[in-house]
Amino acid sequence: MCQLLGMNCNTPTDVRFSFSGFAQRGGRTGDHSDGWGIAFFEGRGVRHFVDHERAVDSPVAELIRRYPIKSSNVIAHIRKATQGVVSLQNCHPFVRELWGRYWVFAHNGDLKDFQPHLHRSFHPVGDTDSERAFCWLMQELSKSHAQLPSVAELTLTLRELSAGIARHGTFNFLLSNGLALWAHASTDLHYIERRHPFAAAHLSDEDLSVDFARETQATDRVAVIVTAPLTRDECWQAFARHELKVFVDGSALTL
Amino acid sequence: MCQLLGMNCNTPTDVRFSFSGFAQRGGRTGDHSDGWGIAFFEGRGVRHFVDHERAVDSPVAELIRRYPIKSSNVIAHIRKATQGVVSLQNCHPFVRELWGRYWVFAHNGDLKDFQPHLHRSFHPVGDTDSERAFCWLMQELSKSHAQLPSVAELTLTLRELSAGIARHGTFNFLLSNGLALWAHASTDLHYIERRHPFAAAHLSDEDLSVDFARETQATDRVAVIVTAPLTRDECWQAFARHELKVFVDGSALTL
Repeated sequence: MCQLLGMNCNTPTDVRFSFSGFAQRGGRTGDHSDGWGIAFFEGRGVRHFVDHERAVDSPVAELIRRYPIKSSNVIAHIRKATQGVVSLQNCHPFVRELWGRYWVFAHNGDLKDFQPHLHRSFHPVGDTDSERAFCWLMQELSKSHAQLPSVAELTLTLRELSAGIARHGTFNFLLSNGLALWAHASTDLHYIERRHPFAAAHLSDEDLSVDFARETQATDRVAVIVTAPLTRDECWQAFARHELKVFVDGSALTL
Repeated sequence: MCQLLGMNCNTPTDVRFSFSGFAQRGGRTGDHSDGWGIAFFEGRGVRHFVDHERAVDSPVAELIRRYPIKSSNVIAHIRKATQGVVSLQNCHPFVRELWGRYWVFAHNGDLKDFQPHLHRSFHPVGDTDSERAFCWLMQELSKSHAQLPSVAELTLTLRELSAGIARHGTFNFLLSNGLALWAHASTDLHYIERRHPFAAAHLSDEDLSVDFARETQATDRVAVIVTAPLTRDECWQAFARHELKVFVDGSALTL
């Protein structure tokens, strides 16, 4: 199984604190050592880093831990290969373009007998069930809407599509188009919404703490979504089974 | 105007020597300081780095200069903005997926009145003429072939399509799908094929030399394609005007 990390904010925010703890699970505090990846939206653009080295050793992960990339939507993934060989094309997150927007997707879980008919414009490059599921989601979104619909409409469509895929196995995923971040849980997914008044937090996987009150403005809102809670002194919420949530500007929307 | 760098080899090769000299043009020996990008194929996968900082200052470019990423197909670009604002989504190279393969594209030049009808699955995310041209190339390739054709067939199709776009202005470009690298010149493009017996070479833009004989095997073949020659003691060939060449395994094919 793999691990997921997502961040959605109302102000471009530095993900280094969360990524630092998360990356420890890629070979040190966890055995997710078959590659990793992270994508940051900056406006409509995406910075996309993937590596088949362990996240804890990777020079590219080291760059991310040091270089303060500020982003409003981030998706990261560390991989424990269950389907597909260990190679760059199988590293999450995956990126595709639809309606003139980049879409970024990462998955945790296993899908059995999921061989959808991919008859349109999205085809996997690697050989994972995850990329296949992403291509099918993109295909079905493009069939359901002629152009980019509202976040609310997209959420309704994604709820239906996710339920269809989740019948094939464990389908925890994160998806973003830079405007919103969708998170779906089959099994393990947790989130936290950090907002004023900010407190201090201490990572579970590394001896590192941060006082968010010193790093933030009173109006900042940051949602972090992760497979297993990253800090030991904050109150993380577990997703319900088969729940799809959408985060915009650092808050979960009620739809 | 921008500058292009491409490498195509028969064995995964470290591009650091060429990239090091090329990156100097992103703010030191040239005024191409509106962002840069580089993409490396590794198998079917792609590592894609873009940054809107000057290549000469960018921490990501510094990583590339230090981290020996070996690849058989590399495309890099440093940008001097002529159309489109300086932002991440306008940084070349651009990446799209077609027929289950990633395609990487970078362009040097300006296209006038090029507003093709993009009625299929490829739409620009940014606002450059270059990304628009790439999307149109991908669309027309997907209409011309039902699945991935041979390199020879692709080259014939690309020759026709490139000529159509080049009527709108300067269209120097590099394109790769990881199997071959296509290079088209409207104005400035040079290439070299390095093969046994290898010699030493000295960069034009930086005080750095390399003895390729010590770094290579006798069977290695490496083609480097660049806007302006990178070394001062090798014999670079200029492309003819409106010439499209395709490189496979480090050699230009004769088609």
